[in-house]
Amino acid sequence: MSDTTDTAVGVLLPWSGLDARHGPWPPNVRVHVWDGLTPEDELPAGVLESTALWVMPYAVPGAERLLPRLPAVRAVQSLSAGVEKLLPVMPEGARLYNGRGLHDASTAEHALGLMLAAQRDLPVWVADQQAGRWAPHFTRSLADSRVAVVGYGSIGQALEKRLLACEAEVVRVARRARPEEDVHAVTALPQLLPDVDIAVLVLPETPATAGLFGKAQLAALPDGALVVNVGRGRTLDTGALLEEVRGGRLRAALDVTDPEPLPGDHALRRQPGVLITPHVAGGSATFRPRAERLVVEQVRRYAAGEPLLNSFPRP
Amino acid sequence: MSDTTDTAVGVLLPWSGLDARHGPWPPNVRVHVWDGLTPEDELPAGVLESTALWVMPYAVPGAERLLPRLPAVRAVQSLSAGVEKLLPVMPEGARLYNGRGLHDASTAEHALGLMLAAQRDLPVWVADQQAGRWAPHFTRSLADSRVAVVGYGSIGQALEKRLLACEAEVVRVARRARPEEDVHAVTALPQLLPDVDIAVLVLPETPATAGLFGKAQLAALPDGALVVNVGRGRTLDTGALLEEVRGGRLRAALDVTDPEPLPGDHALRRQPGVLITPHVAGGSATFRPRAERLVVEQVRRYAAGEPLLNSFPRP
Repeated sequence: MSDTTDTAVGVLLPWSGLDARHGPWPPNVRVHVWDGLTPEDELPAGVLESTALWVMPYAVPGAERLLPRLPAVRAVQSLSAGVEKLLPVMPEGARLYNGRGLHDASTAEHALGLMLAAQRDLPVWVADQQAGRWAPHFTRSLADSRVAVVGYGSIGQALEKRLLACEAEVVRVARRARPEEDVHAVTALPQLLPDVDIAVLVLPETPATAGLFGKAQLAALPDGALVVNVGRGRTLDTGALLEEVRGGRLRAALDVTDPEPLPGDHALRRQPGVLITPHVAGGSATFRPRAERLVVEQVRRYAAGEPLLNSFPRP
Repeated sequence: MSDTTDTAVGVLLPWSGLDARHGPWPPNVRVHVWDGLTPEDELPAGVLESTALWVMPYAVPGAERLLPRLPAVRAVQSLSAGVEKLLPVMPEGARLYNGRGLHDASTAEHALGLMLAAQRDLPVWVADQQAGRWAPHFTRSLADSRVAVVGYGSIGQALEKRLLACEAEVVRVARRARPEEDVHAVTALPQLLPDVDIAVLVLPETPATAGLFGKAQLAALPDGALVVNVGRGRTLDTGALLEEVRGGRLRAALDVTDPEPLPGDHALRRQPGVLITPHVAGGSATFRPRAERLVVEQVRRYAAGEPLLNSFPRP
């Protein structure tokens, strides 16, 4: 496979088998695979030098270290929706493409699972199962709860559909108010939060969202409220949250943290009423077929000289 | 409160405060409270003897031991939907009323929570949180899954609404086929199960449902499938399930078990891919207000000499 010629388009993919599942690659394409875990120096000679389109390994921290070693790269496809951190490290002459839409169903259902687990005390039952206890007690519910969805984009809408089916009430919040869609501005949070049972953050990381949900927003929540984060860790102030959960006034269910990964000895791991998952909201079976369809289409477009989908930032 | 006279209607309730929340009791009613946990001999003298309407404590095993000590009882209100075990111990001259409808939202959302927890590996993340690990991996999803809802009554319908919002596909199964509603008969399970990812049991315990989901049904499920039970433990063959989960061929998420409570040293607790909650599907915040509205209405009806709601079996 090292017969890369001058006319071949070098493509580096994060996993193999796409051709078997989706049909042959265009004839002028030469495909190699790097999973982000194997040392990159084990790739055949010339692969890095000839890669024009790189589809990055999904959710592999540090994979972007390859960028300076790809002199011919013109298109970098991330399979994440939030790619803000890649912009400053993009090589000159290369465009960035993101994975928007790939994660809506997966992320929304993980957010729903976190809420149900927290409301229905699932971590308690997991511990009781292991300890040999059978000690039922009444729990909170998701039904009849009022949920503020902070970040009302495509994932927020997918989550809302699920919440309404669960007989919860939804309060829509986004950076800017959109009165025609009944969406409130984040500046209205202090007035909205005293009446919600659950606040779920589905925000990208931008200069405007960093620390957006901080001490004041947390303080506005009623006792016993649940804070969920499936967006980006830095949109929620970890120190302020820690103070609120330490005494048990608030609860939290977090798929993203700040710092991330969350160190093994971080105090947040040991607080009552805190449930943590390691940034896995987008990484479920429902993502894979959607991601493969996008990758195959991007390779076809690149090889045909057509513009790629999902340019970031949006043109 | 022990001034029960000949004309007063003795009512024994499982918790107090209903009058504060719902207005005064009818004047001819005398109310006492027994929570099912306090020794019944601590009730004021004469209370047991004068109880005409007993609202049983919810989900307190053994509470029915009070029945032989209630010589004046005419109406027994259970807050459970499945009251089959009470029929044989009902005193002569007393009618039984059940809690159908009170648990639909609570049970459906717990079933959904069990499915999401199992598909998205939540018990693994709970263990990792405690152990200080941050080791993300891809998981299954609920979206794109095909789910057989075995027992398509009011809870099954509430569950279906949630599953469809989660982009899962639903196969409806009930004791008898109802082709006009696209409901299959349980006798068709061997043909249906090879194509489902999840089978959820929402069945009452009757002579016809005992062991309904046994070795043959389990064997018909594909490798890796998930079996969920939020109905009654005896509808699923524990021994046959244990054989299938022991080797890891099937997974299970059970809110009800056989035996129940599940003994602390039962092998089912220690199998990989098995999640157990202690019969808490119906016992969440969403149940309480619905239960109180029913109890208040039943007391009013009894005091006014009107027929009560939710007679069991249905007339």
